Amino acid sequence: MPVNFSTKDADFEAQFDALLNSKREMDEDVDKIVSDIIADVRKRGDAAVLDYTTKFDRLELTAETMRIGAEELAAAVDKCEPHVIEALKLAADRIEKFHAKTLPDNLDYRDEQGVRLGSRWTAVQAAGLYVPGGTAAYPSSVLMNAIPAKVAGVERLVMVVPTPDGVRNPLVLAAAHICGIDEVYAIGGAQAVAALAYGTETIEPVDKITGPGNAFVAAAKRRVFGQVGIDMIAGPSEILVVADHANDPDWIAMDLLSQAEHDTSAQSILITDDAGFATQVAQAVDKALETLPRTEIAGQSWRDHGAVIVVENMDEAVPLIDRIAPEHLELAVSDPDALSNKVTNAGAIFLGRYTPEAIGDYVAGPNHVLPTARSARFSSGLGVLDFMKRTTFVGCDAENLRAIGPAAVDLAVTEGLGAHARSVAIRLNLPVED
Amino acid sequence: MPVNFSTKDADFEAQFDALLNSKREMDEDVDKIVSDIIADVRKRGDAAVLDYTTKFDRLELTAETMRIGAEELAAAVDKCEPHVIEALKLAADRIEKFHAKTLPDNLDYRDEQGVRLGSRWTAVQAAGLYVPGGTAAYPSSVLMNAIPAKVAGVERLVMVVPTPDGVRNPLVLAAAHICGIDEVYAIGGAQAVAALAYGTETIEPVDKITGPGNAFVAAAKRRVFGQVGIDMIAGPSEILVVADHANDPDWIAMDLLSQAEHDTSAQSILITDDAGFATQVAQAVDKALETLPRTEIAGQSWRDHGAVIVVENMDEAVPLIDRIAPEHLELAVSDPDALSNKVTNAGAIFLGRYTPEAIGDYVAGPNHVLPTARSARFSSGLGVLDFMKRTTFVGCDAENLRAIGPAAVDLAVTEGLGAHARSVAIRLNLPVED
Repeated sequence: MPVNFSTKDADFEAQFDALLNSKREMDEDVDKIVSDIIADVRKRGDAAVLDYTTKFDRLELTAETMRIGAEELAAAVDKCEPHVIEALKLAADRIEKFHAKTLPDNLDYRDEQGVRLGSRWTAVQAAGLYVPGGTAAYPSSVLMNAIPAKVAGVERLVMVVPTPDGVRNPLVLAAAHICGIDEVYAIGGAQAVAALAYGTETIEPVDKITGPGNAFVAAAKRRVFGQVGIDMIAGPSEILVVADHANDPDWIAMDLLSQAEHDTSAQSILITDDAGFATQVAQAVDKALETLPRTEIAGQSWRDHGAVIVVENMDEAVPLIDRIAPEHLELAVSDPDALSNKVTNAGAIFLGRYTPEAIGDYVAGPNHVLPTARSARFSSGLGVLDFMKRTTFVGCDAENLRAIGPAAVDLAVTEGLGAHARSVAIRLNLPVED
Repeated sequence: MPVNFSTKDADFEAQFDALLNSKREMDEDVDKIVSDIIADVRKRGDAAVLDYTTKFDRLELTAETMRIGAEELAAAVDKCEPHVIEALKLAADRIEKFHAKTLPDNLDYRDEQGVRLGSRWTAVQAAGLYVPGGTAAYPSSVLMNAIPAKVAGVERLVMVVPTPDGVRNPLVLAAAHICGIDEVYAIGGAQAVAALAYGTETIEPVDKITGPGNAFVAAAKRRVFGQVGIDMIAGPSEILVVADHANDPDWIAMDLLSQAEHDTSAQSILITDDAGFATQVAQAVDKALETLPRTEIAGQSWRDHGAVIVVENMDEAVPLIDRIAPEHLELAVSDPDALSNKVTNAGAIFLGRYTPEAIGDYVAGPNHVLPTARSARFSSGLGVLDFMKRTTFVGCDAENLRAIGPAAVDLAVTEGLGAHARSVAIRLNLPVED
């Protein structure tokens, strides 16, 4: 059974802390393995990538056949049902429109002293998108990673997707075609991350790697960080639903299960101000589990990691939300804005009774790659900024260098950096006393 | 002697690649040590932090005395020369003004279907600033880390600064006072990073850690990434000066030396279209080295890592700049804008003959914490965004959920996620066929 407690309980703080600190992933010791794989790919290039693909994906490829060609991507579209392709295109269009609105502004001005100051955003030149294989190969994830990169202006988009036993998912390939991805390789794991970061004979290196993956992929991303940029280390999915008694318990139950069905490590939490409603939702969850296709996964996630927290009033929920810092926050209340405005830490917020979280997974427009495991305290969902970088600039002339330069000389001398001081002073004919 | 080659050389590509791939830092195997220190701090808290401080900084502290109190910070201001405090305040004011202009915009709109969409930026609640101790303890770095956090709206700013042998730098403490840092602790190394990330009895954990440090600090930041946010893994400083023959060779020489004097691992590169000018600059460097206070460091950096590249014309410089992706790029040419607009990869650009890089280290306004080691290909200098995160939101009503929901149901069914499909369909009374 999911844990169930109330802010009125004497041991509420202990129970809440236990919930916050519960571990949902095995601490697999993959670091050494991953470090060896990366070193091997750096040393042997394609040959190493192909060997690991044989070993882990049971698949014999060559430097030529590891690439999935543009023709196969285009052909994949015809293999899918037309109404699904239409849905993918609708999603792609909405995701593109939203992300286009989040492009950052450049800055270029002169301050009071006449010093020219500013900053300019540019796209990274090449990005690598990691798309998981097997059961978690989702075409929607292709869209959510590729479209922000395209909108940012990335010139070269490379996708890697493992195809264990050679099974290729036509919808994932169709999504790659719809997004205009430039290169697709049927490789995965730490070896694919290493190939993207350092390059091989066949794969040119990229500047940034994004996308979710298993523990090996996460460890590899952490290792190559610095050589390339990475997005975040993704953990199991989470939802926090805040719902009052005026909701249909069946709707809320389904929202909780929509995260639970992702993974047995996923977590669904309900906060409500009505203990009776909490009971109704728990009953509705049990009933829904009887007919769900992924009932085993969803049921285990709900039993092992689910939680129901009863609060005295919704204001009491706010600090709990911020401490949980949920990936997805659903506010199924009559005035969701009032509550939303008080929240600081959440990856994405779904406002009101007609906004199930799943709408954001596919077609709403904002990104569904969101910070997990309480990292919404300090990080954001994937977006165009992840594929851009900012260059600042300064322009002085003789006159305004004279206005602000002496302070720089003073500070440089104080820090013991004589050449710093002289590089300013020499332009102003100032003496420097070290 | 610094390497010196020309794009006309037959082996130019090989020489340029060697320059790009030259390693400037020892590959210290600190990972295991750092991992042990972090585990120990998580287990023993303050006691571990104090033990490591005794061991590495030769300094006996207690849970009480490791904090440097507000009175001592305020008193430090009086210990410094008034003109230096004035220079610090001028710098702080200019840095604050520039960073305030880079605060991001929120977004809140309804699209064609009437779906409410948007994103909202909020500050992280607590940030930890790592300030190196010893010779590299720079008050300017305190300003450059703290002010963006303050401008972003961070409520709690915690600074850690190791004080080997108990020596406290009054200017660093004065800078902390000027910036309004809330808590300062006289600790450093991996133990300080662990304390900030996981907390101890005395130090509440933070959400984000920024600031440069040695190999141990860098490894610790990489390890705690995920538990908290981090900025970047800082490497040795670099400058690339692009200069034509119309410059004073002494000015350019001093600019090259202003990076070289940071560290024997620092790198200074000159690109010029005039071989004669290159020779003049090299001679000016040698002459300046005779009188510089940090001549040994600067001289070794210049001899070991310096480079002079002669190009046929400035257009030829552009792709070289982008491949080097320099931390600092100085464009000492007659039309710096024309060249600047062609550059994609650079941390910060200094425009024209009167903008020595050092002006940006102190008083220009933009941040001096910038991406090193070619990471300007994918990352930006420190800024307010590093201390903020974005929450996206979606709001549907029954009507517009009906417009976009069926596509979500289709995609969810295709991905095999039945509860996702049902959570939308149940609100629209739609059937779901798995």
